[in-house]
Amino acid sequence: MSEKFYKEITPAGFGIAIKKKEVLFEGQSDFQKVEVFESDSELGRVLTLDDLMMTTEGDEWHYHEMIAHIPMMNHKCPKTVLVIGGGDGGTVREVLKHDTVEKVVLCEIDGMVIDACKKYLPTIACELDNPKCEILVEDAIEYIKDKKNMFDIVLIDSTDPMGPGEGLFTEEFYTNVKESLKEGGIVAAQSESPVVNKKEIKKMYDLLKKVFPIVSTYTSNIPTYPGGYWAWAYCSETVKPLSYIDEERCEKITKTCKIYNKDYHLARFALPNYLKELTE
Amino acid sequence: MSEKFYKEITPAGFGIAIKKKEVLFEGQSDFQKVEVFESDSELGRVLTLDDLMMTTEGDEWHYHEMIAHIPMMNHKCPKTVLVIGGGDGGTVREVLKHDTVEKVVLCEIDGMVIDACKKYLPTIACELDNPKCEILVEDAIEYIKDKKNMFDIVLIDSTDPMGPGEGLFTEEFYTNVKESLKEGGIVAAQSESPVVNKKEIKKMYDLLKKVFPIVSTYTSNIPTYPGGYWAWAYCSETVKPLSYIDEERCEKITKTCKIYNKDYHLARFALPNYLKELTE
Repeated sequence: MSEKFYKEITPAGFGIAIKKKEVLFEGQSDFQKVEVFESDSELGRVLTLDDLMMTTEGDEWHYHEMIAHIPMMNHKCPKTVLVIGGGDGGTVREVLKHDTVEKVVLCEIDGMVIDACKKYLPTIACELDNPKCEILVEDAIEYIKDKKNMFDIVLIDSTDPMGPGEGLFTEEFYTNVKESLKEGGIVAAQSESPVVNKKEIKKMYDLLKKVFPIVSTYTSNIPTYPGGYWAWAYCSETVKPLSYIDEERCEKITKTCKIYNKDYHLARFALPNYLKELTE
Repeated sequence: MSEKFYKEITPAGFGIAIKKKEVLFEGQSDFQKVEVFESDSELGRVLTLDDLMMTTEGDEWHYHEMIAHIPMMNHKCPKTVLVIGGGDGGTVREVLKHDTVEKVVLCEIDGMVIDACKKYLPTIACELDNPKCEILVEDAIEYIKDKKNMFDIVLIDSTDPMGPGEGLFTEEFYTNVKESLKEGGIVAAQSESPVVNKKEIKKMYDLLKKVFPIVSTYTSNIPTYPGGYWAWAYCSETVKPLSYIDEERCEKITKTCKIYNKDYHLARFALPNYLKELTE
């Protein structure tokens, strides 16, 4: 029998291939096809949505540590956090490492993603039952409209700007997110692959700059995302990136992380020339 | 007709897939299978050796800018440079951007690689006919044995530690490289993927630390290499990394680069926790 592969080939004509062992879950929700498969690789189990790579047991920490700790550590005392998307629970898990946090709201449109991850990806979803975590199976576009002055940190852990996540990449949505922030609040939003999504990145940062006075870009390696390289937008009304790092929290959380440490944090906003041109 | 893909699946069970259009060159040298194919992707033409990804027209600068400019810019006046391997010419091209350079020796064991790249990858091989470049089709292991006090910079732009490149990952070879350096000399050596070559990295750094008093690690994104993330070893007897950057050369060369700039350079030695554990 020939080997089976999961392949995600981007419009750029190249992408990732993973040896596939067996499908553990497959379902069609109101929004997308949800699948978890067991790979025959060091990546372990893999979550895909509409056949696009979302996360794997073996490399999920690359993404989740970066979306959470860069903005969280730059805030003096993050108590209330909103995670938009992120139904796998990895971002919530990292957020809850900060002992300042009193409440994290997860607003995920697709309940099937949450259920599948709780059942099949327990190392990622492990904190979704934490009493500090409130799960809302709702459209974040609607949810955010009347939330004013509520959150210290908002993390936009969305899918791509095509499909169910499309409305999370608009000026109206970003404006509502800004208004949901408390004073000194910070937003981090996944902002696609600098290698294969150059047009999408340019468009997203142009929109963000209309809404937020401070918009900056940070990047890190994600082995299973297109080009192996990912960008996040850091946005705030008043707090510049790298203007603060909570040393005590930083030291404590570094011990729990596979990637995150203070030096790595400080280095994340140094961008290659081609990405500076797209985002600055 | 079904689509054709080039796939490099690492022993970790995952890897890269590229749409393949047509083979432009295929030859069996005394050392390896050499192939250049036209991809149906933004990567353009692709060079493989023994079916392993070496470089592509579309992303070669990620690798070549990093192996060359990090050590070169940390040297006050690099005049003589040795490139070991690197038959595609990309590293030589970057080295020759430094106007301090009087001579670069390319010591590549496989003449077929050089010939194929000159013919099919001219944007990479473009400086191989530069009068400052001396090309030796020789085994670097033998070549380096009697070269004492000759080079300001040695760049080990080799294949993997399996196959023809194996002898370039030994204590004896590194000792000879050290002795080939002039005072204040610096070595950079490609040191595999932190994501999928953890064992090889540990072994290589353990050897390097036996030979060089200063051994440091820097990393950057390489979209077409396993895990999308690559490491290089920076080694010297006396010159610490980041102890010097030639501001004037830096500014001038940054204008010619797609990645390299001063901030990006300064950020390269900040490593994720899991890689610090392997190399420190």
